[in-house]
Amino acid sequence: MTEYTTFTSESVSEGHPDKIADQISDAILDAILAEDPRARVACETMVKTGVAIISGEITTSAWVDLESIVRGVITDIGYNSSDVGFDGATCSVINIIGKQSPEINQGVDRASLEEQGAGDQGLMFGYASDETDVLMPAPITYAHRLVERQSKVRRDGTLSWLRPDAKSQLTMRYGADGRPEAIDAVVLSTQHNPEIALSDLREAVIEEIIKPVLPAEWLSADTKFFINPTGKFVIGGPVGDCGLTGRKIIVDSYGGMARHGGGAFSGKDPSKVDRSAAYAGRWVAKNIVAAGLAKRCEIQVSYAIGVAEPTSISLNCFGTETVPVDRIVAAVRAVFDLRPFAIIRELDLLHPIYRPTASYGHFGREPYALAGATAFSWERTDRAEALKAALT
Amino acid sequence: MTEYTTFTSESVSEGHPDKIADQISDAILDAILAEDPRARVACETMVKTGVAIISGEITTSAWVDLESIVRGVITDIGYNSSDVGFDGATCSVINIIGKQSPEINQGVDRASLEEQGAGDQGLMFGYASDETDVLMPAPITYAHRLVERQSKVRRDGTLSWLRPDAKSQLTMRYGADGRPEAIDAVVLSTQHNPEIALSDLREAVIEEIIKPVLPAEWLSADTKFFINPTGKFVIGGPVGDCGLTGRKIIVDSYGGMARHGGGAFSGKDPSKVDRSAAYAGRWVAKNIVAAGLAKRCEIQVSYAIGVAEPTSISLNCFGTETVPVDRIVAAVRAVFDLRPFAIIRELDLLHPIYRPTASYGHFGREPYALAGATAFSWERTDRAEALKAALT
Ligand SMILES: C[S@@+](CC[C@H](N)C(=O)[O-])C[C@H]1O[C@@H](n2cnc3c(N)ncnc32)[C@H](O)[C@@H]1O
Ligand SMILES: C[S@@+](CC[C@H](N)C(=O)[O-])C[C@H]1O[C@@H](n2cnc3c(N)ncnc32)[C@H](O)[C@@H]1O
Repeated sequence: MTEYTTFTSESVSEGHPDKIADQISDAILDAILAEDPRARVACETMVKTGVAIISGEITTSAWVDLESIVRGVITDIGYNSSDVGFDGATCSVINIIGKQSPEINQGVDRASLEEQGAGDQGLMFGYASDETDVLMPAPITYAHRLVERQSKVRRDGTLSWLRPDAKSQLTMRYGADGRPEAIDAVVLSTQHNPEIALSDLREAVIEEIIKPVLPAEWLSADTKFFINPTGKFVIGGPVGDCGLTGRKIIVDSYGGMARHGGGAFSGKDPSKVDRSAAYAGRWVAKNIVAAGLAKRCEIQVSYAIGVAEPTSISLNCFGTETVPVDRIVAAVRAVFDLRPFAIIRELDLLHPIYRPTASYGHFGREPYALAGATAFSWERTDRAEALKAALT
Repeated sequence: MTEYTTFTSESVSEGHPDKIADQISDAILDAILAEDPRARVACETMVKTGVAIISGEITTSAWVDLESIVRGVITDIGYNSSDVGFDGATCSVINIIGKQSPEINQGVDRASLEEQGAGDQGLMFGYASDETDVLMPAPITYAHRLVERQSKVRRDGTLSWLRPDAKSQLTMRYGADGRPEAIDAVVLSTQHNPEIALSDLREAVIEEIIKPVLPAEWLSADTKFFINPTGKFVIGGPVGDCGLTGRKIIVDSYGGMARHGGGAFSGKDPSKVDRSAAYAGRWVAKNIVAAGLAKRCEIQVSYAIGVAEPTSISLNCFGTETVPVDRIVAAVRAVFDLRPFAIIRELDLLHPIYRPTASYGHFGREPYALAGATAFSWERTDRAEALKAALT
């Protein structure tokens, strides 16, 4: 549902340089949380030709072999030889990680656990829409599925000449009723071996990636396809483009259909509201739509550093609400405790669950979770009944 | 104008670590563009305790002293001694910059200049609203003015115990007519010398920063102030928090009030549509509102890498339009040429104009430009008449 007649979203594969950085940051977070759930982690990564630099602030009692983690993530993705431009086994790994500022820490750790202060100021949005079964916008959902499929056919050998780096983009046409109607344009760029001819590549991408993923009823003679429009994409990964943690925040969330507060997710433990409150925002918005209180819902929350209670909670249902918005807000306040400690407890966030979130989106993933990823707690619609009850 | 009853935006000062990185990236871009307007620059920076790392892809015939530029930016901001935690004169400067991939280049440089392909795929938004005289949302406008004022009173000696790192956040209450009505909450955290007592700091921040900037009619006994809520903020800059280019994209644009495509601005020459098309989007949206065609307007454009024509142009006026939206879109298509080459020519983007954009927002700045910044071309309302003419 949208007021736009067309809407475009993009996604990137796990081999995109920014996503390599996100996955390294979240793999480090997971390794630390597995041993020390009270750790404070803010891990930022930069990848460039031949080097991965890990940085940020970490305070923990755990001992983890950071170098091995970094190398493991890179080779797992498929960057395992100089032939593909990057090799996790032989690249340089530089560690310039520091500790969390004790002055920030004094704001976060309060006498009572319940009163744990937000790890930073900031604003976060949560969103849900009934336009797909996963209650996500259609453009980002299908943009993700395209690059997930690229990864699958690369890994299972269907198209063995594919390399890890890829990007997708989808322009969806919406009808007068605000519902997805057709696909106007598809952009797909994928890294490849030098051996494959461009015409063969284009045909294979259409047959093995695009057709199996995009609903046929949305494709027509009017759909424009841009497949590897530069003509050549052998050089990829960190050689072609420097990668940084937190530089795919729109891909990570709602593909631009929802507003965004600007905070990144990867590498951050859940005491950072940039992550935990954005996850809670999704949970709240999805429960509102699941409860039938609106077809489409966007929630904004904000925090002050060191303060537990949100400084604001605000809701926008774009006129699709079945109950006045201020009453829905009151129900949200009654049903959801949005203090950092309560979010962490209710969504059970102090576990090594983050690496699978770092590619193909943090939201709307339960029906086709990748190997290793269990359903994300923030996708549960377990508060829909409570919301309805609070309204009567 | 918004459907939200309250809306929160934040800003950060030029001494915030992510903004240090943005300013370094844009200072490097400027130095190169000054000598070589045909250069291709994608410069990413990481700052952490004692070190600035510059990375990305640059192809140019210019010779510039990158190390001096980096050191100059850091000391200009005010990080000039180990006492404040970071010193541009003595920190390490590490350069791991590579070249633009020739395969990307072959997609961008086409036989005819006019047909210059977009430097990447992507989606970008432009936005304008009549809720302030600069046609920007009020929350981000005042959030910027708070941290700009922090910088001013630090630099002019009014509050000489201030240090460069600061963040602001503002929760605006909107009336039933969608117009700003009151300020619910203000968060301001500023780095400071160890000598100043917290109570003195709070009083001075209220008197010298908040009161001179925020309209008195929006403040009341109900306005909540959170000033240095952690209690202490002596350690700041890159010691307390790793800084990366492109991690303040919501601060850089509309404070979350508009949607965002995810692309960062700083360090990117205008062949990258992430920057040039977002600037053009602001220009288009502002001219639509200036022409009285809508009170509020958001445009989305998207591109395929190597292709000149946008893959989509779409408009949302939130019901505030005075002319049907599809007719406005037709007028936009008639009046604005949104191919990369045309945007660069019309907005005159191949000059060293970028460093001043890298703090306090890329948009809505003409009435109070900082020293050195001239009015930004994308803020001109020079196409409003042409838009109206195209509609008749
Ligand atoms: C185009 S690059 C970004 C621009 C780059 N920093 C530069 O200097 O031009 C962004 C992404 O596009 C993809 N890419 C890299 N080489 C490409 C090529 N030859 N054709 C299409 N896409 C490519 C990769 O996923 C890469 O991370
Ligand atoms: C809170 S830090 C981000 C979290 C950090 N990476 C960590 O490990 O906890 C974000 C920003 O807050 C500001 N900041 C740093 N120290 C602070 C303090 N003691 N009190 C309030 N704000 C602070 C700085 O502008 C900094 O860049």
